[in-house]
Amino acid sequence: MNKTVNHLVILGSTGSIGRQALEVVDQHPDQFQVMGLAAKDELDLLYEQVQKYRPQAVALGDDKEYRKFQEMVGSTLQVMCGLEGMCELASLDNVDTVLVALSGAVGIEPTLAAIKKSRRISLANKETLVAAGDLVMQAAWEYQSEIIPVDSEHSAIFQCLQADKAYVKKIWLTASGGPFRDFSQEQLDEVTVEMALSHPNWSMGPKISIDSATMMNKGLEVIEAHHLFGLEYDQIQVLVQKESVIHSMVELIDGSFLAHLGVADMRIPIQYALTYPHRYVSPAAHLDFTQLGCIHFAAADEKRFPALALAIAAGRQGGTMPAVMNAANEVAVHAFLDRKIAFRQIPILVEQTMLAHQNIYVPQLEDILTADRWAREYCRHLMQQ
Amino acid sequence: MNKTVNHLVILGSTGSIGRQALEVVDQHPDQFQVMGLAAKDELDLLYEQVQKYRPQAVALGDDKEYRKFQEMVGSTLQVMCGLEGMCELASLDNVDTVLVALSGAVGIEPTLAAIKKSRRISLANKETLVAAGDLVMQAAWEYQSEIIPVDSEHSAIFQCLQADKAYVKKIWLTASGGPFRDFSQEQLDEVTVEMALSHPNWSMGPKISIDSATMMNKGLEVIEAHHLFGLEYDQIQVLVQKESVIHSMVELIDGSFLAHLGVADMRIPIQYALTYPHRYVSPAAHLDFTQLGCIHFAAADEKRFPALALAIAAGRQGGTMPAVMNAANEVAVHAFLDRKIAFRQIPILVEQTMLAHQNIYVPQLEDILTADRWAREYCRHLMQQ
Repeated sequence: MNKTVNHLVILGSTGSIGRQALEVVDQHPDQFQVMGLAAKDELDLLYEQVQKYRPQAVALGDDKEYRKFQEMVGSTLQVMCGLEGMCELASLDNVDTVLVALSGAVGIEPTLAAIKKSRRISLANKETLVAAGDLVMQAAWEYQSEIIPVDSEHSAIFQCLQADKAYVKKIWLTASGGPFRDFSQEQLDEVTVEMALSHPNWSMGPKISIDSATMMNKGLEVIEAHHLFGLEYDQIQVLVQKESVIHSMVELIDGSFLAHLGVADMRIPIQYALTYPHRYVSPAAHLDFTQLGCIHFAAADEKRFPALALAIAAGRQGGTMPAVMNAANEVAVHAFLDRKIAFRQIPILVEQTMLAHQNIYVPQLEDILTADRWAREYCRHLMQQ
Repeated sequence: MNKTVNHLVILGSTGSIGRQALEVVDQHPDQFQVMGLAAKDELDLLYEQVQKYRPQAVALGDDKEYRKFQEMVGSTLQVMCGLEGMCELASLDNVDTVLVALSGAVGIEPTLAAIKKSRRISLANKETLVAAGDLVMQAAWEYQSEIIPVDSEHSAIFQCLQADKAYVKKIWLTASGGPFRDFSQEQLDEVTVEMALSHPNWSMGPKISIDSATMMNKGLEVIEAHHLFGLEYDQIQVLVQKESVIHSMVELIDGSFLAHLGVADMRIPIQYALTYPHRYVSPAAHLDFTQLGCIHFAAADEKRFPALALAIAAGRQGGTMPAVMNAANEVAVHAFLDRKIAFRQIPILVEQTMLAHQNIYVPQLEDILTADRWAREYCRHLMQQ
């Protein structure tokens, strides 16, 4: 086993992925040293984490929380603030790995900051690649920064590709289908926030739970896979595997499929993204296939789940369109969580925002950030009509 | 792609695996040159193969066939005879790969001959490892001869292990369960040769078809896996996956499972065993998972399929016991194919032969060959009672 200590920054340490990453650290305390933690506003949990892991620095999402937290910790550690603070934390010295577990497009700039320091990126923030995939991958190549995916599907593919990168024909991204997989159109129209937050297979944060329910999550993952693995959209196929036993597959030119399977426990891909190419034992359960019965496969239904098709269409267009699609989706999802719009309005708002956007096909980072802001405003404006 | 020509000897070129290996050669004619072919007695097919592939030498299984074939080809190529001829062919000069696709323990000595020339062995003959696994693996290590498995299960595991050899917890050998998977004990007692020869998922020779029906085949594969992958018997688990979509799996220490999936077409593992680490396109169908519906998993029933437990017991004992178990099974299977015994007598004969054997725990090759001969005689003797 690798005995070098991995110096770690976790952006989003109080979220679902961040907390599970710290569980991985707890399992292998000799392997990791936590250098920095960033959270949005869960001050009490962040305070506990600071007491336990003794990082050099932390960053808070906004100014108000920043002041409160500074009072809580006094001068015992460096406290940074906002997007700038997040970027500063991501570029901290003597760091090996930056786990980007933020939710939403806010992950773009901190990820780029870490890449520019040639850090290994454990990427749990899919919106970064969705909105700015070309730029991020280009920067990663330029600065020799490895990007290791945390998403269970992409981790599955990444693991299956280790020996056979040159022979890929296609990848198959599996999807649970979400909590409403078998709902009729009429049932989908009646979906409430509570219903959408309870995912059958994975325990996740609210944004990704809603994205899973609309299947937008799978669309974002298709774009993410396009960038991570350098594949055309025609080489990426979505497959509904409702039990989430198969976490994704690679189809090779000879007709071989390599797949990653297991329980739906995010600690496995998180740990792998932190320890790659090494593996360590994990407290995650080992699946007993003799007790499994059977597992099911089906095509995804883009009619009942139009968000999936919208995301793929945005990905195929490229340019600023994925950022616009993603920003509109973030706004619409939060509006749904705030009970301001109905479930079925989410893809409608995304589509209308996309239709109104003037795509810039070879964008700079500034173009992407501008498009993102425009889309948020436009989508909010649509909701006020 | 690798442009070096692979100089190939095929032992068992007229059998199911041998014929499919030549189909692989036909698909990639620039990649292969056939140097030698060996067959038991299918003279007409061998003659056709000789006309097409123009090998330097061939070997025939027995003296009578040898003379006939010599007359057919005249002095156009070297014709060898019997086990000695097979070994000579296996040690031919300027050969890269020897595909051992013989059926039964007769494969041991030619495999060892090829290993001693440091050839790459594409091993489709499981009985060689079952009967003489320790010796064969020791020789392969000594002579730096790579052994690439052809059996679909072991090929699956071999492919899944490429990146993660160091992190194996267990392997899961999948089994279709054979044509009688769901038969009651009473139905099993009434099985005929015709019923046993028609396997639902794979098209195979008669010996392996019967072994599949008794599930002895899976037992032999457990022993084979023990040797190929250096695993304890407790690390090898049999899993019934009746659709044969998952060809086997590796369970890693972190709870990850890597699996190889695809259609049940032996040309895929045969080709991989010949071209490893490269892959080439294959005429085998690519599975469309969206059309698959579901796949099933179950534990193997050692009560209805006692041959499986017998083989594993022989493997755990080690020494000459696996060779004895295998030899008795070969005799019993051929007796069943010749309609001399009932289906259910196969494992009974194997068990009785094993019980009568005085195990030699650290055998030399001569001990193994003697035990094999003893077991054949003993088993024949049992049938005459």
